[in-house]
Amino acid sequence: MASPESAIEFVYGRRNDAFKRCEEFVAIPSISALTEHAPDVQRMAQALVAELARLGMDNAEAVQAGANLLVCGEWIEAPGKPTVLVYGHYDVQPVDPLSEWDSDPFEPTVRGDYLYGRGVADMKGSLWAFLFALDALRQGGNYPVNLKFLLEGAEEVGSPGLAEFIADHRDRLRADVVVNLDGGTHSPDQPGIVYGLRGLAYFELEVKGPSHDLHSGVFGGSVDNPIDVLCRLIAGMHDADRRVTLPGFYDAVRPLDPEEREAIAASAHNDEEWQELSGAPALVGEKGYTTAERVGARPCLDVNGIVGGFIGEGAKTVLPAKALAKLSTRLVADQESAAIKDMLCEYVRAHAPNTVTWEVRELSHGPGAITDRHSPYMKAACDGLEKAFGKPPLFSREGGSVPVVGHIQQLLGIDSIMLGFGLPDSGIHGPNEKQHLPTLFKGIDAYIYFLDAMGRLS
Amino acid sequence: MASPESAIEFVYGRRNDAFKRCEEFVAIPSISALTEHAPDVQRMAQALVAELARLGMDNAEAVQAGANLLVCGEWIEAPGKPTVLVYGHYDVQPVDPLSEWDSDPFEPTVRGDYLYGRGVADMKGSLWAFLFALDALRQGGNYPVNLKFLLEGAEEVGSPGLAEFIADHRDRLRADVVVNLDGGTHSPDQPGIVYGLRGLAYFELEVKGPSHDLHSGVFGGSVDNPIDVLCRLIAGMHDADRRVTLPGFYDAVRPLDPEEREAIAASAHNDEEWQELSGAPALVGEKGYTTAERVGARPCLDVNGIVGGFIGEGAKTVLPAKALAKLSTRLVADQESAAIKDMLCEYVRAHAPNTVTWEVRELSHGPGAITDRHSPYMKAACDGLEKAFGKPPLFSREGGSVPVVGHIQQLLGIDSIMLGFGLPDSGIHGPNEKQHLPTLFKGIDAYIYFLDAMGRLS
Repeated sequence: MASPESAIEFVYGRRNDAFKRCEEFVAIPSISALTEHAPDVQRMAQALVAELARLGMDNAEAVQAGANLLVCGEWIEAPGKPTVLVYGHYDVQPVDPLSEWDSDPFEPTVRGDYLYGRGVADMKGSLWAFLFALDALRQGGNYPVNLKFLLEGAEEVGSPGLAEFIADHRDRLRADVVVNLDGGTHSPDQPGIVYGLRGLAYFELEVKGPSHDLHSGVFGGSVDNPIDVLCRLIAGMHDADRRVTLPGFYDAVRPLDPEEREAIAASAHNDEEWQELSGAPALVGEKGYTTAERVGARPCLDVNGIVGGFIGEGAKTVLPAKALAKLSTRLVADQESAAIKDMLCEYVRAHAPNTVTWEVRELSHGPGAITDRHSPYMKAACDGLEKAFGKPPLFSREGGSVPVVGHIQQLLGIDSIMLGFGLPDSGIHGPNEKQHLPTLFKGIDAYIYFLDAMGRLS
Repeated sequence: MASPESAIEFVYGRRNDAFKRCEEFVAIPSISALTEHAPDVQRMAQALVAELARLGMDNAEAVQAGANLLVCGEWIEAPGKPTVLVYGHYDVQPVDPLSEWDSDPFEPTVRGDYLYGRGVADMKGSLWAFLFALDALRQGGNYPVNLKFLLEGAEEVGSPGLAEFIADHRDRLRADVVVNLDGGTHSPDQPGIVYGLRGLAYFELEVKGPSHDLHSGVFGGSVDNPIDVLCRLIAGMHDADRRVTLPGFYDAVRPLDPEEREAIAASAHNDEEWQELSGAPALVGEKGYTTAERVGARPCLDVNGIVGGFIGEGAKTVLPAKALAKLSTRLVADQESAAIKDMLCEYVRAHAPNTVTWEVRELSHGPGAITDRHSPYMKAACDGLEKAFGKPPLFSREGGSVPVVGHIQQLLGIDSIMLGFGLPDSGIHGPNEKQHLPTLFKGIDAYIYFLDAMGRLS
């Protein structure tokens, strides 16, 4: 086993060569949402299997779990040392609107301090950094801890099959702690650890009126317009205080105590920064809460997409037969993600007029999670970050969802430590996604120091 | 000049041959809304120029008027007889959703009593029928009236350039009355004449929030969602009584007197039939008015299309930068179509939050119109319909817009008689548009009797 110092020396000597592999990862358009990219998801999985084998992992393989192609592998040769389950995902979001990208999303491009490309920050960059850290550590012949890998290919579509796989393979996945690479950090100079994540429940709501598209002049004014009905339903999902009106939506929400509100405030971006990151003309949210609380500790509901009628160039006077919205709720502890569908259906049932029919389809759901900030594993992570960045991390609860954290907490009984190195302005899920490279390179060091610290736990 | 009886005999002998020309018209995809079909619009115009020349019209030509390719021609050889300006359009609506058509929209197909294809009812069928009627009448060497043609290629996109052309060519277009072929009739057994048409004002409303698409987990709950804002704006455009809330929207609306309400009721479809035509689960509309009044004599506002965020297959957790709706208002006498944009802007200004920016773009506008039911020309039309169908026509005010009727009323000071033979269930603007052929064939007879009766006016 290499000392952290010699491992870091190895990293500095090989970084340019190794970086090519990072670019190779990003060049594979492993978009899980689009079936035409299934071969690319396959290709990415095979690249990772090869990489795990190269790193000496036993049983490195791709395993089909429902619609999810998992990549597994393990190294269990450090008796008495902790076992770390490494979670990550290798799929990426779709790229539309493609016209807003300044370079091809799958031709990774360095401009200034950034690598641009779909998936660089979410999360192929951190995945590459972790594997590179392992490569450096094994130069001494051994790893400081036991390792198990669980990398999935369908995180961006709600991780189908993953919870079932975990439930069915508890022994194979048994570990002391998870290091979840799908995290971000605070800023280039200030590491951060997210200890609270929101859950997700994602739906399609379809409203149908006339049996076929009608001429809006002939019928306009005499039949309900499905787009209009859908808009009224959506408009009613928030009240004037920006609270979600789905019945019972807040019943299970864990209230914030003053101590946690203070901790959240300490790690929060200020509103001016946050607004600048968003590019929105103004911020707004649930009455009575700060921005950091709104995104990290309070649930919300968003319309992710809407479509109906004529959306081409010019004018078409159609009164459409139907309209569709994609809606998702972000959930916090202790909301039950599986319960949201019933609330949404109850809301629509109560508010949809008899002039339409409707359907709610759940596309995915997953729990939120909170990780113990005081465990020895979390201390090892803090050590690693502090050594790499020169400062201890700030703790925060964030708005995104990593459902696997909740699933693993429920199914394996262990916490996940979120350790990834995207920054808040990485533009993940949007055009021109980018990874700040100096932060990513510090991340490699942090992984090395973290694993070394883990190896010194009794 | 042929007698109406010998003209009708001619029609019966040649109908099968002549029908091929109707199918040729329908086979040309002259979709004005889509720029890639501009060559087809050109082709259709040239086919009509050739047809007018064949029918002995002088100066048969295609004239570019702004973005509108007009087809003109005239026959002024019946001194002392009325001059009829023949208006029609040869462009058609787009065909999407193509997957819902049972046969190719541009491969005209007869099934049962119907001809299927885009534009058969709106309005290539009636255009063909009128030209065929002229062909029959000229077998005697002359037409019973003077004729001027004004056929446009951009009616379905709001007739750009047409009003300007009319204003600039008042002498060339001077006539006693317009026969507007872009009408429909009541039912196969019951002719109808529409004497009131709604105006139109068509807009795009775009709402912009964040400067780029955001991750809905990271930012959800802290910034306004442009789709949500757009939905709230749209939802607020009607009150609980289904009245449009744009400020001043009803100020100029001509009220209905009891006599006209009775006449409208006499010609109205019953609600059960209307609902069946629409295929909607229930009818609904402005409180205090019947269905026929709602579509014919009251204005309305419809969302014709909406789009924002991720609308592909599956789930994408995006908080989008913008959302767009296509909105149109249908207007009645004496609403001023040019005034609606200000009302819409005033409404949005009053209701849009400071968390977004917005833009209203007017795509087109045109006036509504009411035609004198008691003129001698209208009597000639009634005669023609009664002879062809065996019953006098019912009079109605309908919901669709034929802006040229209002423009001609304003610019040339003459009325338009709506004489076309689509039926209310023709599915115009939607998939599987169809023309009832027995009704169209009666229409040829009606055109012949009408023109003959016009020729007997002093």
